[in-house]
Amino acid sequence: MRLRNKPWAQDKINNHPDYVITNPAEYRGKWNQLFSNDQPIHIEVGTGRGRFITEMAKENPHINYVGIEKYTSVAVDALEKMLEAEVPNVKLLNVDGGGLLDFFEEGEVGRVYLNFSDPWPKVRHEKRRLTHQSFLSQYEKVLVQNGEVHFKTDNQGLFEYSLGSMSQYGMKLKQVWLDLHNSEFEANIMTEYEEKFSSKGNRIYRVEAKYE
Amino acid sequence: MRLRNKPWAQDKINNHPDYVITNPAEYRGKWNQLFSNDQPIHIEVGTGRGRFITEMAKENPHINYVGIEKYTSVAVDALEKMLEAEVPNVKLLNVDGGGLLDFFEEGEVGRVYLNFSDPWPKVRHEKRRLTHQSFLSQYEKVLVQNGEVHFKTDNQGLFEYSLGSMSQYGMKLKQVWLDLHNSEFEANIMTEYEEKFSSKGNRIYRVEAKYE
Repeated sequence: MRLRNKPWAQDKINNHPDYVITNPAEYRGKWNQLFSNDQPIHIEVGTGRGRFITEMAKENPHINYVGIEKYTSVAVDALEKMLEAEVPNVKLLNVDGGGLLDFFEEGEVGRVYLNFSDPWPKVRHEKRRLTHQSFLSQYEKVLVQNGEVHFKTDNQGLFEYSLGSMSQYGMKLKQVWLDLHNSEFEANIMTEYEEKFSSKGNRIYRVEAKYE
Repeated sequence: MRLRNKPWAQDKINNHPDYVITNPAEYRGKWNQLFSNDQPIHIEVGTGRGRFITEMAKENPHINYVGIEKYTSVAVDALEKMLEAEVPNVKLLNVDGGGLLDFFEEGEVGRVYLNFSDPWPKVRHEKRRLTHQSFLSQYEKVLVQNGEVHFKTDNQGLFEYSLGSMSQYGMKLKQVWLDLHNSEFEANIMTEYEEKFSSKGNRIYRVEAKYE
C-alpha cells in the first residue's frame, strides 16, 4: 500500500477515542465491557483504509469488530469511514498486529480476518507474512475454541504459501475459492485494494480455515 | 476422456501379461516378488493413455510403477506406450481403482498419483471424485506411514474441493501450485490431457499432500 505523509493524521487519531482505542492492552479480557455487550468480537489484522471492517460492522450489528492497522496515515482513512458510518460496533487500533496477545485474552476473539496482507515475497521475509506459523499461533491463542481465520488475497504466491502454512500448522481448510469473484460466494465485501486490482483482471483467492 | 470403441483392445490386453496384470488380487502383498526387487511401488489411479506413468518409470528406474485404468479402450493406449518404452519397472491394471484394498496390502504402496481425474462436478456425484474422503481412506490404508498423494488437475472446482477434502480428512498440504506451468517445479511430466489443455491456456493446479 502506498503511504502518504499526513502530518495531521496523528492528531485526528488522538481526537477520536470513541473509535480509536489508544490503550488496547488495558482492555485485554474486557472488550465486552468496552462494547457494553456480549457479542462476538471479530478482528481484522491489517485493516488498511477500513472499508471491509466498517461495512462488515454495518451489515452485522450483532458482531463487534476491531480493526488493527499499524500505519497512522492509513488508519486515519479507516477512522474517517467509521466516523461516517456512525455504528457502535467497530473500533480501531493503530498498533502493530504482532502484539495481539497483549490486547486480547485467550478465547476473547471470535474470528480473525486477513485481507490482502503484504505478500513479503522474499524467502528471508517469510516470518513477516501474516500467515506464517508464528502468527497462526497468536491467532489460535486469542481465538475461541475451533475459531476460524478468513483470508483473501490476489497474490498467488502468498496464497500458495498460506494454504501450506495453515495446513502444516494443523488447521483444517473448510473451503477454498480460487476465483472468488466468479464464484457463488455472495457475502463478499470488497476492500479498496480488492476493487482496484480485481478490476484489472487479478483473480481473488479466499480460504476459510479452522483450528482444531 | 473420449472413449472410442476398440473391439481389438481386450485381445491386445490379454496378450501382454508381461505388462498387464489380469489377476492383481493374487499379488496383494507380493508386488515386490512380481517386480523381483524391493523398490518402492508408486501407483497412479486413473492412468489414462499412460504417458505419465511410462515416462516416470523411464526417468526413475529405482521405483516401480503400477498404473490403474478401468477403461479397456484407454488402457490399451497405455499398454502400447509401455511396450514401446520396454522398461521392467512399470505394470498396468485394467481394473477399477475403487478396489485398491483388494490389490495392495497395508503399507505396500509408496505414493499415489492422481492426474486430471474426472471432476464429477455435480454435487450428487461427489462420492465418485477420486479425492472424496472414501478414496482418501483407501489410499491411506495401502500407503506407507506418512505416505503422500500427488494430485494435479486443470479443473478449478475439483481442485478447490480436493484441497478442502484432503485437509478435512486430516492430510497436511505439503505444497500447493496454483499455476504449475509458470512455476519453478521442474520435474513435471505432462499427461496427454495436460499438454492439450494447458496449450489452450488452462492453468494447471497441483498439490502434494501427506498423511500424518
